[in-house]
Amino acid sequence: MAQAPIDFYFDFSSPYGYLAAHRVEALGAETGREILWHPILLGVAFKATGQSPLVSQPLRGPYHLNDMKRSARRLGLPFQLPDGFPLATMAAARAFYWAEATSPVAAKKLALALLNACFAEGTNITKAETVAAIAADLGFIAEAVMAGIADPAIKEKLRAETDVAIARGVFGSPFFIADGELFWGNDRLADLRDWILTGGW
Amino acid sequence: MAQAPIDFYFDFSSPYGYLAAHRVEALGAETGREILWHPILLGVAFKATGQSPLVSQPLRGPYHLNDMKRSARRLGLPFQLPDGFPLATMAAARAFYWAEATSPVAAKKLALALLNACFAEGTNITKAETVAAIAADLGFIAEAVMAGIADPAIKEKLRAETDVAIARGVFGSPFFIADGELFWGNDRLADLRDWILTGGW
Repeated sequence: MAQAPIDFYFDFSSPYGYLAAHRVEALGAETGREILWHPILLGVAFKATGQSPLVSQPLRGPYHLNDMKRSARRLGLPFQLPDGFPLATMAAARAFYWAEATSPVAAKKLALALLNACFAEGTNITKAETVAAIAADLGFIAEAVMAGIADPAIKEKLRAETDVAIARGVFGSPFFIADGELFWGNDRLADLRDWILTGGW
Repeated sequence: MAQAPIDFYFDFSSPYGYLAAHRVEALGAETGREILWHPILLGVAFKATGQSPLVSQPLRGPYHLNDMKRSARRLGLPFQLPDGFPLATMAAARAFYWAEATSPVAAKKLALALLNACFAEGTNITKAETVAAIAADLGFIAEAVMAGIADPAIKEKLRAETDVAIARGVFGSPFFIADGELFWGNDRLADLRDWILTGGW
């Protein structure tokens, strides 16, 4: 019988989500678990927790900016903050769910391309047109992407995914849930891996 | 020539500080670096960052309570939150600096005993009398501890250490500074170790 999948929550405006997105499928392969990607709008969770975007905070902002860069260097990934960071990422998240309805595999490729555009190349991916152009480079039909981003059912899907995430205890990005256990942060992927492989401790 | 020491900042009311205190000297031995322990009052830093004690926060509180427990289990350390958590820890921190003026080694032993009383046994260590009793079990003279905790010069030392910490960018516990590089969290000790051993990346 197939093992339960791992839920991978992230916001398209999350630098640590970008880093984790490059690692999580390898963890899925190693543990034999499917990874379900769930882009969400972290701002909604921030309202519940009273948090604000990290890089704008005194002390915590400068620390994390340095930590994002050195974490990326360690993983061998290019890194820069996009213009206008932190970004509104409704269009990107909706495009993901629109693509996922046709092909989860294609949706993950789109998500990675959007995250790379944002954090490897520094592109502001807020606008639907930008998202559609990046998707078009992967072979999606730009007009169909635009229609998907504007589709009320897709908007509702993103709202519902964000609500479910918060109800399950998600408050940051990246966030992982496996076998009912929650792990927050790119720096906890090794813990998640060990938890699954050992059955927990 | 001796290598530069590693600064280890923590608050006596910090569960993750307790966990790190049990690990940091082994890291010092492995890397050949002296560890300088600096208890501080994290509440002062929280005023600068707008943060509040973790376990009282929606979503973040329940997550971290579970994470503290599983982090302790993984390290084979007993764990419970003390009565009245989060605690005011001026007395404990002042006792540390009082003891350190005589013997940094004895001060570290005292710090570990206080952290164990707090997070292994669940003792509320806020009161000076409680701190003095724990110190007395280690051979300190209780009256001398009490006098140290009340000494204006020791109070000023704690204030100054906390101010210096914030000026250096410290905003959480545990927090490490080595060779000008900042690392936050018990879960970043492996990164700190690798950074020192490799010279950084």
